[in-house]
Amino acid sequence: MRAAVLRDGRIAFRDDVPDPAPGPGQVLVAVRSCGICGSDLHFAAHGAEVLSLTDQMSNGIGSGMTVDLGRDVFMGHEFSAEILEAGPGTDTYPAGTLVTSIPLLISGNSVEPIVYSNHTLGGYAERMLLSVPLLLRIPNGLDPRHAALTEPMAVGLHAVNKSGVQPGETALVLGCGPIGIAVVAALRARGVENVVAADFSPKRRELATTMGAHQALDPAQGSPFDTVTPAVVFEAVGVPGIIDDVMRRAGHGTRLVVVGVCMQSDTVHPFFAIAKEINVQFVLAYAVEEFADSLREIAEGGIDVTPIITGDVGLEEVGAAFDDLADPERHCKILVTP
Amino acid sequence: MRAAVLRDGRIAFRDDVPDPAPGPGQVLVAVRSCGICGSDLHFAAHGAEVLSLTDQMSNGIGSGMTVDLGRDVFMGHEFSAEILEAGPGTDTYPAGTLVTSIPLLISGNSVEPIVYSNHTLGGYAERMLLSVPLLLRIPNGLDPRHAALTEPMAVGLHAVNKSGVQPGETALVLGCGPIGIAVVAALRARGVENVVAADFSPKRRELATTMGAHQALDPAQGSPFDTVTPAVVFEAVGVPGIIDDVMRRAGHGTRLVVVGVCMQSDTVHPFFAIAKEINVQFVLAYAVEEFADSLREIAEGGIDVTPIITGDVGLEEVGAAFDDLADPERHCKILVTP
Repeated sequence: MRAAVLRDGRIAFRDDVPDPAPGPGQVLVAVRSCGICGSDLHFAAHGAEVLSLTDQMSNGIGSGMTVDLGRDVFMGHEFSAEILEAGPGTDTYPAGTLVTSIPLLISGNSVEPIVYSNHTLGGYAERMLLSVPLLLRIPNGLDPRHAALTEPMAVGLHAVNKSGVQPGETALVLGCGPIGIAVVAALRARGVENVVAADFSPKRRELATTMGAHQALDPAQGSPFDTVTPAVVFEAVGVPGIIDDVMRRAGHGTRLVVVGVCMQSDTVHPFFAIAKEINVQFVLAYAVEEFADSLREIAEGGIDVTPIITGDVGLEEVGAAFDDLADPERHCKILVTP
Repeated sequence: MRAAVLRDGRIAFRDDVPDPAPGPGQVLVAVRSCGICGSDLHFAAHGAEVLSLTDQMSNGIGSGMTVDLGRDVFMGHEFSAEILEAGPGTDTYPAGTLVTSIPLLISGNSVEPIVYSNHTLGGYAERMLLSVPLLLRIPNGLDPRHAALTEPMAVGLHAVNKSGVQPGETALVLGCGPIGIAVVAALRARGVENVVAADFSPKRRELATTMGAHQALDPAQGSPFDTVTPAVVFEAVGVPGIIDDVMRRAGHGTRLVVVGVCMQSDTVHPFFAIAKEINVQFVLAYAVEEFADSLREIAEGGIDVTPIITGDVGLEEVGAAFDDLADPERHCKILVTP
């Protein structure tokens, strides 16, 4: 079958990937849509560094991520799919049912992330395996392209949940890429009355406003902290220097939620944070329940993800789409339709 | 009168400081005892850097700290004192009453920290001014030397309060200087059943055990994280590298409370903290209520501060005491008795 894979830091197209066979508790599905995530771009460019950092942690969720970058790597963790067939002795929804799932594959007693793997297929392929206990049925009528946004929107929902933000508080979202936008949408859905977004890109600011931001600021015109005094700040940029800048400029007692994944080392001045008793909550991913909440919110119209989708490509074009995503004026989320 | 002052980065002794005159709402007090704080040592050595960092923050508690390092600087913020006389039209405790106070001086509509100042006297002097609304009477019989420990012990209590630690959780305290020791004592007083301390100094480890740590580890023998898996970590070292090391080694969901004041810039890998959803709470000082709780805890015997006091000096010896405090094998807390 056809698939896009990571090979030597670039996306390569293959038409010779063997179909996976579902084991007990698994289903073979046809991928209907899969979003390209910023972390996929980062892994393509800096995979060795990501793996090295993961190794350096003595424990935590990243341990045991063994990927050989010298071999093809399967990717794609924001997907919707259609059930084709179940593994031996496995009950599931009927063939043709549209589903999504958190990106984990259960095989016997082991659980592997569907994210970067030499052997477990992701959503950049015609077909892949999913785990029956983790399946969520896509409610009738929801476009599977929209359902593919469940995963990134769940990341935003989780960050908002962890922040403990209250409706009356001002929230500032730094960076309006897909994750920042997901945070904006979750804040608005939560009823937060003053959602402020900041991004250098005019298109991204426009998108933030469309998705629910009450104000969208251009950091080139001055620090957002000159305009607002947020109780909660979401760092969704993920480059060095942002955390320190927030610590320097934010007010006393600010809660900073770091949802942007900065892979490089970063320099901070603890003194700034100490003097203002800042709380920094680093967040990653979501709980299963939040994933289901995210799907429901999209399906019931609480969050309209249509404006986020800026492109649709086939498997042959994934490589070009990775390049195109570098320009925030052109793209936010590109979906791959195998 | 006599006082020890900071002059050109060194402590100088003076016997020509004019007595301050209490204004309305103020009292003139005779200092009975004043602890030397690690932050005083740091300010003596790196005062210009501290002031520069304070200036860089656009707001927060440090703003407006105007100290001219070219002139004598008064210090000493961990004090107990005896009331001498009240300002005009001011009701207070009778002369001779022993008191302590959070280190703030109210003058009309302004409030100034009693910490580093060219004009507001601190506890390294024979006499100083205090504010009547902030006075706390030292309960009958408590040694004023012990009451001088109210302030640093309140810092530990505040850090423990902010951590939300529960009795059944394991708490790890990194660094057993006066603040780390205050955290250990507050954890023990809170009923935390597994308090683990870590310090390179054998004397400091012994002190931690005396003050309530169930275990005291030597980091030279291996990372404390090889021995324990704490839910809450208190960083009471305050030097670069510690925060990143905690992020690298701690388990998923660890709460890190940064109570050590690192004045230098520091390098961290946000990736470690993100992957494990670590929460970092930076803390400073205490609330007025916590200060009162700290005094009560000491006065009622909940915390015996006697082992912390390792030296007593007069005002002429403050400079030598600053030098002596560099050796953790010799000293923890030196009290100045004017």
